[in-house]
Amino acid sequence: MNAISSASAVQTVHVPLGERAYDILIGPGLIARAGAEIASRLKGRKAAVVTDENVAPQYLDVLVASLDAAGIASAEVILPAGEKTKSFEHLITVCDKVLEARVERNDCVIALGGGVIGDLSGFAAGIVRRGVRFVQVPTSLLAQVDSSVGGKTGINSRHGKNLVGVFHQPDLVLADTDVLNTLSEREFRAGYAEVAKYGLIDKPVFFSWLETNWKAVFAGGSARIEAIATSCQAKADVVVADERETGQRALLNLGHTFGHALEAATAYDSRRLVHGEGVSIGMVLAYEFSARMNLASPDDARRVERHLNEVGLPTRMSDIPGELPPAETLMEAIAQDKKVKSGKLTFILTRGIGQSFVADDVPASEVLSFLREKHG
Amino acid sequence: MNAISSASAVQTVHVPLGERAYDILIGPGLIARAGAEIASRLKGRKAAVVTDENVAPQYLDVLVASLDAAGIASAEVILPAGEKTKSFEHLITVCDKVLEARVERNDCVIALGGGVIGDLSGFAAGIVRRGVRFVQVPTSLLAQVDSSVGGKTGINSRHGKNLVGVFHQPDLVLADTDVLNTLSEREFRAGYAEVAKYGLIDKPVFFSWLETNWKAVFAGGSARIEAIATSCQAKADVVVADERETGQRALLNLGHTFGHALEAATAYDSRRLVHGEGVSIGMVLAYEFSARMNLASPDDARRVERHLNEVGLPTRMSDIPGELPPAETLMEAIAQDKKVKSGKLTFILTRGIGQSFVADDVPASEVLSFLREKHG
Repeated sequence: MNAISSASAVQTVHVPLGERAYDILIGPGLIARAGAEIASRLKGRKAAVVTDENVAPQYLDVLVASLDAAGIASAEVILPAGEKTKSFEHLITVCDKVLEARVERNDCVIALGGGVIGDLSGFAAGIVRRGVRFVQVPTSLLAQVDSSVGGKTGINSRHGKNLVGVFHQPDLVLADTDVLNTLSEREFRAGYAEVAKYGLIDKPVFFSWLETNWKAVFAGGSARIEAIATSCQAKADVVVADERETGQRALLNLGHTFGHALEAATAYDSRRLVHGEGVSIGMVLAYEFSARMNLASPDDARRVERHLNEVGLPTRMSDIPGELPPAETLMEAIAQDKKVKSGKLTFILTRGIGQSFVADDVPASEVLSFLREKHG
Repeated sequence: MNAISSASAVQTVHVPLGERAYDILIGPGLIARAGAEIASRLKGRKAAVVTDENVAPQYLDVLVASLDAAGIASAEVILPAGEKTKSFEHLITVCDKVLEARVERNDCVIALGGGVIGDLSGFAAGIVRRGVRFVQVPTSLLAQVDSSVGGKTGINSRHGKNLVGVFHQPDLVLADTDVLNTLSEREFRAGYAEVAKYGLIDKPVFFSWLETNWKAVFAGGSARIEAIATSCQAKADVVVADERETGQRALLNLGHTFGHALEAATAYDSRRLVHGEGVSIGMVLAYEFSARMNLASPDDARRVERHLNEVGLPTRMSDIPGELPPAETLMEAIAQDKKVKSGKLTFILTRGIGQSFVADDVPASEVLSFLREKHG
């Protein structure tokens, strides 16, 4: 593919957040163009690139060369890969490196990696000097369609996932779709769960389109760019309506309350369960629980499960290898999840495909007996 | 003083920051009324009180009793006193305690203490669950007139003071003026430096009033409440105009660039120099440097020094006990200070009493030779 066709294949999603507005560029060859794209948008000429040990050997040189070519001096921080990196310990390392590199308010932190690197370095960018610029270069499908859009950053605590962080919007997101070709099938599928989620929240036509076109999305090319752009646009729409998550933004948590509990129950062991797989099972559970509460038809739950199964995602708790803790333990994880207000459980439930809504008074007893039933 | 006269003596400064608007109450007896004031404003009924080992024995029981009486359950975190507490280590402790207490987004963190406790626990409140409510109960004059107003929070780094933090506005500030009666002369004077600062920034009439009435302010009573309310209002005006410090808010740093460098030079050793004393010397230096640059009359610098001397504040580098590092070292601290943009030095200079302005192109060479001269 030559440079001209690369550039013309790029789609742009604009996120109109007033003085925090930014663009998401989606398409091939964007890492090699990162320096030019950043230099044309930001005033600063210093950057701290944060990445992990898996991603660094593949893309760090190309990124740094493109920054150099654009006159942007960069420092590098290479962290261990994996969810455990979202800790205070690594946050301190990143903050220290960013300060050492004398990154000032108009300079930037660049996250080159998946959701873990994005969440951690976005948090560091949000707190060093009370906020420096932030550029995301997401290298997983999950990060391209979810964690790099919306400004949520954070780390995990022993009390649960993402319990410490800030809202800090990026100034630019470069979703280079070439990098997705090197992902494992399993990792691509996990990201696809979040793509399907946007259909299930409020885009029934997009969900139908995915049912028909998912093989083309997996194969790459324009269908994949289309699916990613539609997902980013869907998330951007929700974020713009509710930047600080006081209401409708919670819709993005469809499947996540159950999913987070399952991730906690498997001690964030990626050999057993990765985030997108937890969301896949969680979405099916949310549709089934909605059917149980007579909100939606059981047919919808079956349709969701059928599609996710077809692409190869797990859809039941029993699909997770190894023993799960009892339903009561899952319930405790749910209660400590951050989507709790004054003791009542907030869940994203649904009235059908693309008809999800925020329910903030779900009885804990119903959830527990549902979990007991599904667990067995 | 009875309850009715207490209540009627309270002044309120409203900080109109849109959806982040809040009130500062200033007057006697407010700690004993904290529970009622909080309960009438916030929805949550849980609180985590953060304080230090010096303040806890004096006021923690009264505060907790008033929370209890208002139906607010509270957990307590008692930290070591002193600037060294503004560290990642103690931030982690506070975040963990707040999560353990299951403080949710509508619940609050209460800072009971001086600026160190306020800055640290405000930072924790800003990042736990990406932001919970925050109430300040400042127990030093410095905290009442400065650090409890404006939403800046943070900790220190080995690279400098306040280099890591967030903007997180309080929901309520309760400045109980009774607590000031137990401060040492030295601590009260240090806070007074920030009171005088508001006159020197843009309130020449207030500065003249202080020259005449400072003894009454030190003695307590209505002159003191008046001075604190005027200071809070002055700071609030600047913050409202420029919440995120993109421009005019930097005026609040009058005396602080030199002051921070002196604090760093004395390794934050409060036996040698406390923050307000650094600001006092720093303001005199800023007026003298402005005179040297032919911006202001040397008479203004002498008038500032005379008043600060009269109340017992240090005004010269030679007033600091012990050896200072060479001017070059002070200069390095200034260059790493956060008020640096693209390598140029930003200073608050002045054209006279109450005529301060932001100068963002001050030549480093001039500052260095000025420091060499003053150092000797």
